[in-house]
Amino acid sequence: MPLHISAKTQAMPASAIRKLVPLSDAAKAQGVKVYHLNVGAPDIKSPDCAFEAVVSKCRGMHHLSYTNSAGLIELREGLVNKYYKKIGIDIEVSELLVDVAGSEAFAVAMQIAAGPGDEIIVVEPFYTNYQTFAYLNNITLKAVPTDIREGFKVPDISEFEKLVTPHTRAVLISNPCNPSGKLFTKEEMLAIGDFCRRHDLFLISDEVYREFCYTEEPHFSAMNIPGCGQNVILVDSVSKRYNLCGARIGCIVSHNKEVMAAALKFAQSRLCPPVLGQYAAIGALDTPQSYFDEVREEYIRRRDCAVRMLNDIPGVFAPKPFGAFYTVAELPVENAEDFARWMLTDFRIDGATTMVTPAASFYKTPGVGRNHARIAYVLEVPELEKALHILGEGLETYRKLHGYEGVA
Amino acid sequence: MPLHISAKTQAMPASAIRKLVPLSDAAKAQGVKVYHLNVGAPDIKSPDCAFEAVVSKCRGMHHLSYTNSAGLIELREGLVNKYYKKIGIDIEVSELLVDVAGSEAFAVAMQIAAGPGDEIIVVEPFYTNYQTFAYLNNITLKAVPTDIREGFKVPDISEFEKLVTPHTRAVLISNPCNPSGKLFTKEEMLAIGDFCRRHDLFLISDEVYREFCYTEEPHFSAMNIPGCGQNVILVDSVSKRYNLCGARIGCIVSHNKEVMAAALKFAQSRLCPPVLGQYAAIGALDTPQSYFDEVREEYIRRRDCAVRMLNDIPGVFAPKPFGAFYTVAELPVENAEDFARWMLTDFRIDGATTMVTPAASFYKTPGVGRNHARIAYVLEVPELEKALHILGEGLETYRKLHGYEGVA
Repeated sequence: MPLHISAKTQAMPASAIRKLVPLSDAAKAQGVKVYHLNVGAPDIKSPDCAFEAVVSKCRGMHHLSYTNSAGLIELREGLVNKYYKKIGIDIEVSELLVDVAGSEAFAVAMQIAAGPGDEIIVVEPFYTNYQTFAYLNNITLKAVPTDIREGFKVPDISEFEKLVTPHTRAVLISNPCNPSGKLFTKEEMLAIGDFCRRHDLFLISDEVYREFCYTEEPHFSAMNIPGCGQNVILVDSVSKRYNLCGARIGCIVSHNKEVMAAALKFAQSRLCPPVLGQYAAIGALDTPQSYFDEVREEYIRRRDCAVRMLNDIPGVFAPKPFGAFYTVAELPVENAEDFARWMLTDFRIDGATTMVTPAASFYKTPGVGRNHARIAYVLEVPELEKALHILGEGLETYRKLHGYEGVA
Repeated sequence: MPLHISAKTQAMPASAIRKLVPLSDAAKAQGVKVYHLNVGAPDIKSPDCAFEAVVSKCRGMHHLSYTNSAGLIELREGLVNKYYKKIGIDIEVSELLVDVAGSEAFAVAMQIAAGPGDEIIVVEPFYTNYQTFAYLNNITLKAVPTDIREGFKVPDISEFEKLVTPHTRAVLISNPCNPSGKLFTKEEMLAIGDFCRRHDLFLISDEVYREFCYTEEPHFSAMNIPGCGQNVILVDSVSKRYNLCGARIGCIVSHNKEVMAAALKFAQSRLCPPVLGQYAAIGALDTPQSYFDEVREEYIRRRDCAVRMLNDIPGVFAPKPFGAFYTVAELPVENAEDFARWMLTDFRIDGATTMVTPAASFYKTPGVGRNHARIAYVLEVPELEKALHILGEGLETYRKLHGYEGVA
């Protein structure tokens, strides 16, 4: 047999969020300014205490050794006592393990909950890499559909019931949701928790955007669903919370001892989480509340700007998100990926263009989301205004070029 | 079905290297001093330039964002031009991708080469986590046996030929070898390369201990096997080279474009490698040759001490290793794991004990290696002497306790 990579790797889906990067790199190489509304990589300042901790640990350091596979005890205790306690999540240190960012945490959580041939129920649209790790582990995602026109409201639990088979092992949600910005209400969470308990399913709750909620009600964590302690596996990360995306520090949390023992086996196979990032995370635990309050105000300004300007573009519909820093917008085009590519290759205003993420791969239901794009409102308002102005002009030009009649 | 973790995760093997850690933690909690000969976590100073780079980048940093999934271009270019060029490995920047340490690099390399149901040939004994990732990906390892009494010499290639089936996809070696310290000769490498070419197999070469070679001949990299460019996937790491185990920075290198495109898909699924660790790795590129020379001299002293003292213990046989900082020793006990556990729970001299890694899980051939232990000579000579003295006394006491007659 001639030398080739494994069929499974060949068929592995490429990242929907990152696959257009070569096109944006090419545009930049031509001197084009690219406004990135495509990646959840915010430009907000990290708390100084994070970097101060790294500098302080590095000064005079002898060598950088492995830590416990579960992470430095200083970080684990700090997360439990300084962070989770403060936000009303009551856990023991043994119920938390540090992972290589949220990415490792949910990949591991999915494998703990489900094996090859098993099924996990997700609420659609969902973070695209859930599909990647489902694929790699031969797990099938079954999607509960939602409606963009209803702000991605979680449908009645009967829609979940319809998807249950003997192979169903878990429900996986992100709350607030990447990509939709949907914030799950307490009632929705209780209903999902009840569903998981009745069917003996794990509830994998990815809450990495917890600090980005724009309602008066506080975020309601899956960890606080009464009677669901054995079911819930919490996935968390410092990436968004402190603007430390590059630290690659997250964690997996559960009251379920079997889950935590399994998480440790996975953790030991990769030896330990990044240690310098752990130092940054330890430092970040001293971030004052005022930091979060200011960041929240800033994102509310950005969200309001994004939603207003998007809906002012003829044919665009974008619901108002109440969490995270994304919204999914319906665009007046047939195929949002073709449009996103064209923006990068062909469209410029004053030497600039705007990059968005086509959202089809955030959906599992065939055909749904082809004309949706995820918009990350991660730029300051003046920049965001320029980016969305270019997007609007681009849409108008693209529609004329492709012979769209009037407005959808 | 009641709530339980997936059968696959339940059956996942626990890390042989780390599973005794709870026992050593318990001993330490009793105030016992534990000499760690069990983990490849050396105590050698990291080059100052690594930490200086981190401090310099962190000062005044605004926020810590994602990097390219393949790693910072500054690091990739630096590795190609400042490191690989210097040691005679000639690659383009596009032929290298930064991974989350060697652990991610070999896990990804294995998945690129082999899919579920496929087979990879390893030379026994081998790094135990190869088995973990083979298990997780439903890949079968087929082991070429070696003989401890012959210093783990690579057997004639006919032993490899015997293992070839239609499902064989790759050969995986570590050179120098963890756990045996075996350094592959140029002739052995050429023979393996020829074998891979003839059978269209990938050659995954884990060379993370490349700087730790104790012969006059320089290390011969798989990248330099003539005509094998499409077959070879190099796995590398800064962990051991610069004593930056905690940085979690490694890389995957190949001239095979299909391999590198696949590596990028995996890399994108976890977003990016740890950024602070990347800074440390960039800084470490300026490490002077004198650093490596001094480290090498130090390890030769340690190795000579370890091999001499081990072979002076009645019934112990340990071949002289020519690479890495391990040796596998045959112990005069039936089960090295039982003995290693007993050392941690029961045996102390002046309030101290010694921890070794039972080596059975480094073997695939049933029954082989049950009386072998991996000894990492990662302590300074005076400490190493104390540790090995305790090991010798422990063996004598254990043998008396268990009624061994005379010496094996």
